Amino acid sequence: MAISPLAPASFPALPVIQGVRFAAVEAGVKYKNRVDVMLAVLDPGSSVAGVFTRSATRSAPVLDCQAKIAGDSDAGAAILVNSGNSNAFTGRAGETSVAAICTAVAQATGLPEDRIFTSSTGVIGQPLPHDRIIAKLAEATGALSPDSLPDAARAIMTTDTFAKGATRTVSVDGKDVQIAGIAKGSGMIAPDMATMLVYVFTDAKISRAALQKLVSEANARTFNNITVDSDTSTSDTLLMGATGASGVDVEGNADFATAVHDVFRELAHLVVKDGEGATKFVTVNVTGAASGDDARTHALAIANSPLVKTAIAGEDPNWGRIVMAIGKSGAAADRDALTIRFGDVLVAENGWVSPDYAEEQGAAVMKQPEISIDVDIGLGQGAATVWTCDLTHGYISINADYRS
Amino acid sequence: MAISPLAPASFPALPVIQGVRFAAVEAGVKYKNRVDVMLAVLDPGSSVAGVFTRSATRSAPVLDCQAKIAGDSDAGAAILVNSGNSNAFTGRAGETSVAAICTAVAQATGLPEDRIFTSSTGVIGQPLPHDRIIAKLAEATGALSPDSLPDAARAIMTTDTFAKGATRTVSVDGKDVQIAGIAKGSGMIAPDMATMLVYVFTDAKISRAALQKLVSEANARTFNNITVDSDTSTSDTLLMGATGASGVDVEGNADFATAVHDVFRELAHLVVKDGEGATKFVTVNVTGAASGDDARTHALAIANSPLVKTAIAGEDPNWGRIVMAIGKSGAAADRDALTIRFGDVLVAENGWVSPDYAEEQGAAVMKQPEISIDVDIGLGQGAATVWTCDLTHGYISINADYRS
Repeated sequence: MAISPLAPASFPALPVIQGVRFAAVEAGVKYKNRVDVMLAVLDPGSSVAGVFTRSATRSAPVLDCQAKIAGDSDAGAAILVNSGNSNAFTGRAGETSVAAICTAVAQATGLPEDRIFTSSTGVIGQPLPHDRIIAKLAEATGALSPDSLPDAARAIMTTDTFAKGATRTVSVDGKDVQIAGIAKGSGMIAPDMATMLVYVFTDAKISRAALQKLVSEANARTFNNITVDSDTSTSDTLLMGATGASGVDVEGNADFATAVHDVFRELAHLVVKDGEGATKFVTVNVTGAASGDDARTHALAIANSPLVKTAIAGEDPNWGRIVMAIGKSGAAADRDALTIRFGDVLVAENGWVSPDYAEEQGAAVMKQPEISIDVDIGLGQGAATVWTCDLTHGYISINADYRS
Repeated sequence: MAISPLAPASFPALPVIQGVRFAAVEAGVKYKNRVDVMLAVLDPGSSVAGVFTRSATRSAPVLDCQAKIAGDSDAGAAILVNSGNSNAFTGRAGETSVAAICTAVAQATGLPEDRIFTSSTGVIGQPLPHDRIIAKLAEATGALSPDSLPDAARAIMTTDTFAKGATRTVSVDGKDVQIAGIAKGSGMIAPDMATMLVYVFTDAKISRAALQKLVSEANARTFNNITVDSDTSTSDTLLMGATGASGVDVEGNADFATAVHDVFRELAHLVVKDGEGATKFVTVNVTGAASGDDARTHALAIANSPLVKTAIAGEDPNWGRIVMAIGKSGAAADRDALTIRFGDVLVAENGWVSPDYAEEQGAAVMKQPEISIDVDIGLGQGAATVWTCDLTHGYISINADYRS
């Protein structure tokens, strides 16, 4: 598959995160001749926090992670992820597979089973051939290296066209703390959260409770505000591990919180930029709504509208479809109070197209690969930002064929 | 544009409805060399009822209809509809256009202005050239004929690939009552209601209040349960006129109510069958939900899911995406209680694929032009049916280019 036109020029240089090692192996779960299993092992003393899909039909690995995530243990932890099969809607067999993998990873790493977290992504409803994964655990543990996070980023890909990584270094009390993360998309992306797996690591020292709070807050402002196709996966998982190896306590540090938020946002944007068939990256800013919830409702209605998304694909500055989406969202709106901008171009106000607007101006904005749509509802102070992509022939081609 | 593969073989033979006459003329609002304005004139004594979009940014004609519809008058009524321009989000100019048209139609027909109902469908946000319509009113009134309902069906089309009509005859107290209706789609179709204009006429005798109740009830079970792309129009309008010319009082008559419901459902199905790019007509039946609302929420989540709709386009019996859609809908569900059927084929139960299911069975169902997806949630007695179509390259092609 062709690499997304919105892909960054290269995968970023990720720093070594002291206290965590990675391996990626070829287990042949579904794909051939590519790595499809990642293993991350965090040293004793690490904190692990996470957020998960709210789907009512969530997968066996998600349910297992949720049962374990609140456990506060100093024993260390391992994260094992396979691509090619989501182990979702696989009945009792799904739970059996998770248990078998956790037992085997615990044996291979010397960690307790309740510190083994797993994710699976890919086809729904087919039994996970967990024996293939277990057969490769000795190879994986033997290959563990602090340098292998980029390999892990490749192992978790499904229909992704590029591997996704992001990093920040933040100085706390004169000492550097490293944050590095990886993610995969790229369809079935919608709040809350997305067909998305995200793993972020830091050598900062932070309690599990504080890390969980930070992860939940940053997630709410990043991954929960992206949408590719309004479809929510049964498997969405975000795990963040803090090893403490830097010795730098970041609890309550605002710079660290900002850096985590930045890494999350950058990964979230990369997921959108690899949205199935995406050719445009779209930022929808809604201000002036009656409430923050109303602003998000309007922003999601615009971002999920097939008619808005196809207009963007066609580089058509079709602001009438923006008006339509606001009207259908269910949140409060007043036709005559709306202000709509494409980029810096004022398009519509006072219930009609702006007298100064010329179609060429909107068309010029639409030709850019990255587009912002700013809507002021004109009723209050509520604001929200949602990121999305366009809806193209590429999306249809991928999803009318791929069994995901 | 090629005619939808789901189109019926021919436009039905519509009966004459005594007491109402029709005309269709070429006003050149946007389209050239085709009829684009319809006029219907109902005799004195007629009742008129209607339902309208719930969009917060609804169009000027819709607002005007809503202000007039409850008026109970024996003066007769006229309905004027143009295609090519929706007169939506056109500021104060939109109201001026509606007023100008209503004044002119009132003069041309001798009816009071508060009995003139108008609809406009097409491009949003461009001023309606109402002078072009008014200039053709003399021609339209001169051409009024009881036989011209099929011409009216053509005049209201936008991206529709075929004209839509339906009819029923019902015997009440040994006398025949006629019902005939027309509709246009075909994108921006979603509850509540759709980019849809629907006009239904009958020679039955019925009070306005009883007709309104019947229209609202039948609409809730038909047009409000179809979705093409989840996008709701600013212009949706359904008007029904009862002339009473048959002399047959149908108030409270169950056969008449059933016949109206049947006409509505047939027209609603035709709208879906002409959904932009549609190649499959899909009936989603949800039973066993915790409530009726939950059933409808699940059914709409399935029917609006881009991943479900693209799988159907690809003739892929991808029941995993059905599970995903149920999971994300927000309504109550239990993975292990679900039962999923494609047509008569039992696909999944007890939280997994059925042991008797073979992929070829599901694939055979998916090859049909009309497909049913039956889901039993397994929690209660709530049931709902929603009709939709697939999501294809055709939809993208139409909407990435067409300025609607």
